Amino acid sequence: MNKTALVPVAEGSEEIELVTIIDVLRRAGVAVTVASANGDGTLQISASWGTKMVADTTLEDCVGNHYDLIALPGGLPGSEHLAEHPLLDTMLRDQAAQGKLFAAICAAPALVLASKGLLLDKTATCHPNFQQSLQANVVDGAARVVVDGNCITSQGPATALDFALELVEQLCGVVKREEVAAPMVLTTTPTAYY
Amino acid sequence: MNKTALVPVAEGSEEIELVTIIDVLRRAGVAVTVASANGDGTLQISASWGTKMVADTTLEDCVGNHYDLIALPGGLPGSEHLAEHPLLDTMLRDQAAQGKLFAAICAAPALVLASKGLLLDKTATCHPNFQQSLQANVVDGAARVVVDGNCITSQGPATALDFALELVEQLCGVVKREEVAAPMVLTTTPTAYY
Repeated sequence: MNKTALVPVAEGSEEIELVTIIDVLRRAGVAVTVASANGDGTLQISASWGTKMVADTTLEDCVGNHYDLIALPGGLPGSEHLAEHPLLDTMLRDQAAQGKLFAAICAAPALVLASKGLLLDKTATCHPNFQQSLQANVVDGAARVVVDGNCITSQGPATALDFALELVEQLCGVVKREEVAAPMVLTTTPTAYY
Repeated sequence: MNKTALVPVAEGSEEIELVTIIDVLRRAGVAVTVASANGDGTLQISASWGTKMVADTTLEDCVGNHYDLIALPGGLPGSEHLAEHPLLDTMLRDQAAQGKLFAAICAAPALVLASKGLLLDKTATCHPNFQQSLQANVVDGAARVVVDGNCITSQGPATALDFALELVEQLCGVVKREEVAAPMVLTTTPTAYY
């Protein structure tokens, strides 16, 4: 059966991070649901740099569903909106407590995951602007991607592809990761810190 | 005065390439117009991997405007749709003839630019799947980005960030390129072939 992933999105989510997660997971055959955190039933958002995108559904419609992965794009104020969404709060806490995969990039590890205490016992990373205050174990500030058990974090737009490929590896294995990466013309070996 | 860029988009454009161009150019202060090639006045498209995006305007509404750059995302069938659009055909030929910047990535250098004869006297690149048949001078098949005068080409989703940063350098200079790249957490030096 296909793996499933929930990708929440809000006004001001970072569009490279958002779209790279969606694109790469779907290349791997993961069933991705892009869910609006707008809170008013609307699906369209304007991303950090003005790209207009339309979610597949609302977060409200995703409650009670099982997802193998919840992956958060960063961006401001997108990360703040995701942090404030009460249903996403519950979904993230349940996902972490059940040992299922949860992931975030850029500002989202700090403003969403760490602000909820979900990184307290984790090795993690985030955008350099937030690393010093991150309530997590930051071992290597230069690591593009950090995997600690069921938690995957990454730094920013330029590490989004490595992040998304790591999500593929965690969900579908390293062979699928390589199968997805090759036609995307990935000419350098991405490194992940474990 | 701000530099201006036109980014045409169609059903099946590759979303990482599309969004990376938009995002990075806007970070550099370039006034980017995302224009639908749907041809029926509608703005929403579904990208290669199902991401739903909304253009700013239609290509029809852009005719007669000056753009410092026209930059084409790849993807299938997006590149074919861009190739078939009669107004974009005229705009690309005028842009090239006037010595203004034009650029394409992935399938678009082959299916759009080369199919119109716009790469006949150019050194260029494209997705590896199209390089052998590319009607252009392909000097280095591994080059992530190739600049030849007013023409910039690149290989695929994993080279999209290098491509977009090269567009910034061509429009706004290398200092702006570095200013844009730093907060995106670009930890490797991209290389461009001239």
